[in-house]
Amino acid sequence: MRRIVAHRTKNLIASFSRRSLVFEHRFSSFPEPSSSGMSSTESTSPVTVETINPKVLKCEYAVRGEIVTQAQHLQQELQTKPGSHPFDEILYCNIGNPHSLGQQPITFFREVLALCDHPNILDRSETQGLFSADAIERAWQILDQIPGRATGAYSHSQGIKGLRDTIAAGIAARDGFPADPNDIFLTDGASPAVHMMMQLLISSETDGILCPIPQYPLYSASIALHGGTLVPYFLDEATGWGLEISELKKQLESAKSNGTAVRALVVINPGNPTGQVLAEDNQQEIVEFCKKEGLVLLADEVYQENIYVADKKFHSFKKVSRSMGYGEKDISLVSFQSVSKGYHGECGKRGGYMEVTGFRADVREQIYKVASVNLCSNISGQILASLVMNPPKVGDESFESFSAEKEGILSSLARRAKILGDAFNSLEGVTCNKAEGAMYLFPRLHLPQKAIEAAKAAKKAPDAFYAQRLLNATGIVVVPGSGFGQVPGTWHFRCTILPQEDKIPAVVSRLTAFHQEFMAEFHD
Amino acid sequence: MRRIVAHRTKNLIASFSRRSLVFEHRFSSFPEPSSSGMSSTESTSPVTVETINPKVLKCEYAVRGEIVTQAQHLQQELQTKPGSHPFDEILYCNIGNPHSLGQQPITFFREVLALCDHPNILDRSETQGLFSADAIERAWQILDQIPGRATGAYSHSQGIKGLRDTIAAGIAARDGFPADPNDIFLTDGASPAVHMMMQLLISSETDGILCPIPQYPLYSASIALHGGTLVPYFLDEATGWGLEISELKKQLESAKSNGTAVRALVVINPGNPTGQVLAEDNQQEIVEFCKKEGLVLLADEVYQENIYVADKKFHSFKKVSRSMGYGEKDISLVSFQSVSKGYHGECGKRGGYMEVTGFRADVREQIYKVASVNLCSNISGQILASLVMNPPKVGDESFESFSAEKEGILSSLARRAKILGDAFNSLEGVTCNKAEGAMYLFPRLHLPQKAIEAAKAAKKAPDAFYAQRLLNATGIVVVPGSGFGQVPGTWHFRCTILPQEDKIPAVVSRLTAFHQEFMAEFHD
Repeated sequence: MRRIVAHRTKNLIASFSRRSLVFEHRFSSFPEPSSSGMSSTESTSPVTVETINPKVLKCEYAVRGEIVTQAQHLQQELQTKPGSHPFDEILYCNIGNPHSLGQQPITFFREVLALCDHPNILDRSETQGLFSADAIERAWQILDQIPGRATGAYSHSQGIKGLRDTIAAGIAARDGFPADPNDIFLTDGASPAVHMMMQLLISSETDGILCPIPQYPLYSASIALHGGTLVPYFLDEATGWGLEISELKKQLESAKSNGTAVRALVVINPGNPTGQVLAEDNQQEIVEFCKKEGLVLLADEVYQENIYVADKKFHSFKKVSRSMGYGEKDISLVSFQSVSKGYHGECGKRGGYMEVTGFRADVREQIYKVASVNLCSNISGQILASLVMNPPKVGDESFESFSAEKEGILSSLARRAKILGDAFNSLEGVTCNKAEGAMYLFPRLHLPQKAIEAAKAAKKAPDAFYAQRLLNATGIVVVPGSGFGQVPGTWHFRCTILPQEDKIPAVVSRLTAFHQEFMAEFHD
Repeated sequence: MRRIVAHRTKNLIASFSRRSLVFEHRFSSFPEPSSSGMSSTESTSPVTVETINPKVLKCEYAVRGEIVTQAQHLQQELQTKPGSHPFDEILYCNIGNPHSLGQQPITFFREVLALCDHPNILDRSETQGLFSADAIERAWQILDQIPGRATGAYSHSQGIKGLRDTIAAGIAARDGFPADPNDIFLTDGASPAVHMMMQLLISSETDGILCPIPQYPLYSASIALHGGTLVPYFLDEATGWGLEISELKKQLESAKSNGTAVRALVVINPGNPTGQVLAEDNQQEIVEFCKKEGLVLLADEVYQENIYVADKKFHSFKKVSRSMGYGEKDISLVSFQSVSKGYHGECGKRGGYMEVTGFRADVREQIYKVASVNLCSNISGQILASLVMNPPKVGDESFESFSAEKEGILSSLARRAKILGDAFNSLEGVTCNKAEGAMYLFPRLHLPQKAIEAAKAAKKAPDAFYAQRLLNATGIVVVPGSGFGQVPGTWHFRCTILPQEDKIPAVVSRLTAFHQEFMAEFHD
């Protein structure tokens, strides 16, 4: 039995290596996450990597992978031995985590959350001096929507009905088309929602999900964990990460001819890691394609507030499909939203939702059932999701300060996207599409042959080699493009635009200096 | 292909029916969760119950199943047509959700959470008047443990290190043995932690997990979702839901002879739905059994604070195994804890953790990787988990009021457990073991033959039939025993002890009156 399992694992590794043309990883190099002083290494546990679920082994998530673990080690060293490295802090540009880099929360949102956490103070006179009047009023409104005002109770498995009403109204106001609170499933961030849909749609490895390449690796990880097949479609870097229907068709046909039943199409708009914002006519083509091919459209729309260029606008796929005259019976569409992104960036709250439309009633019941096994998502995250979809309005006491905070963050992000994009493009051997939206740049590295050979000697993908050197020289953490997938033979990395604006000049100069030295070292 | 899938589903239904000796469900009767007015029923979506993941179809979770959906409908009717039913409110005794039935939160915990949500007020003078001094101090301590004091940032994938330090210290104080913060994985309640372990341990249906019958249906649901086999061991109702090692051995051997590789043993202590508290020597036998048989011990210890009898005490399996001299290398043990239970019952906060000990380093890395795909659990839940494991101490300003709140809740729960248990035992044809701990009673129904026949005619399991009648007559919601599993031919239901104490007399009298009428109607 042991031999059979070992053999299975070996095959897995082999098949994994074949995939590595797109995803250049080696899980054998996955680092120890935490240096437990305990004797876990001595364990004679019957559980071994040969006997655990091979889908777990296969799953990869580079955004928190090896490079981040190394960064954490460096950070510890900086604390215990200041001056031990040529930088005095680690700059985590690996992950869309704005508050970790100093972004401040939106005051109104936090006021309401605090009041809902401790409603006993709502009636106290001191509270009037500490909190804005509309935050107090909003807290009362929300509490009145919660049965028994019990923020400490499990809610309905889809989330508190009153909050779903608010969110549905927010969606309707955004799109100009109605939204049904019964279509909303509140979740602990968007990730569990994506897992839930993958769990529903994937029965075996013959079930395929069309995913953009490059993609946010939640998708590849979730597909791997659920044992399906990622069917890649390549975004066109030359046209600003364009999404071509011809490419979708080609990959769909290719997958079909290999015996893969393609169940869904993932579209990330605005793009992660690629930052492009889809044009409405392109979205119409995508809707048409899904309708024609009978694919569920999984629309990752978590960056819907993050648009940085004047000539682009976010359109939800729901709005686009309804504008085309397509309703419930025409297209199965799931839109994912999160409180972690936008101008607020409340990653730690783990709030989000999916809007599930165009599914048969009996299938929807199955989604509800799976949601009910986990009881509900966290109530603070639910409340925050309702605030995000219904922020202060003109005339509210907080409106002016709220708007100033919001616009301050968004305009600063736009400036940072521009400055960093320009900086990348000014480097020798680097080209970078602009970030029209989202929180990332995904520059391409045109590396000298010597650097590629040095990477090979170090048993690393060239972009991982570069990212490693960058970290060690500057303390800047980026994620190698291989973690997102890329056209074979091309090399990239993802860098967030999130360092605070006063740090951007230092980031640019450290990065530039490093790159010049790197290129000089490996010049052909 | 469609025919093959339909055939597969049919087989699934057949194999499911075989299981139904223990779990008497029919998923065909799973109700519509939400009455969407939209046209989702009209959808011509390519996704059908025949094409979705059959593991999802197989999964059951009765705690929020049919009976609860019916209760929600009744509640709506009571709101729109007051007086339309012979009761004026629905009493949700189906789920361990204390705040939904009026239990108040622990003030100190909520103060700290509110201050961490909105730290801007920490320095304001009005705050001194609104919050206790030690809550303010604790909030500062916690904020200082969070990098950049950013409660809005994703944390380390296992949770904030400082909070894990606090939790580890709390475990060490509880057990008298050291705990390592690197062994702690903070999660959104205990459920995702259980899923994570099942995902790791289950590769296919030949992987078995030993589970108590009756069990909390998270386990059967999670095993079904991950495609494994639930290997049942029966608790002995005659000895107060005793856990016999001979039964474990018998079931393990039986599973092995059927080709099932048993990977882990689930023990729920205090028991859910059964309420027993294991004796220490029994726990030693269990540890010995797991060590000898090479099983991971999955210890559901979420009710560790909920003990209601003087002659029983909670001992963690970690403490028991360490007391026996067994360390990391001897036994693989996962302990699950939640902020949803205990005296605080903060279900809506979705906080919890698992302590993972005795695993090989390379397997632990895989657990870390899976945790990292979901980034982190919600920070409020993380903070609350640290508070639960390190509540106010003697000398702290809040200690006296905290203790009064805590003892008030626990002593009231003990009284309610006694009164409801006595009430069940006073009913004709009902026997009920006492709730030594947890939040439930699991009375056995010795039903007249005529009632069993009437249930059969209504195409319901007899206990589901009883629970349905109880709901319609009294508004009291309980979960049929078939949702937890039971010895074939026996019938039970689970009823929480959570209605507020002033409502208990009415619950008892409504329940008694209903039962007498029911028995009179179906008397042989």
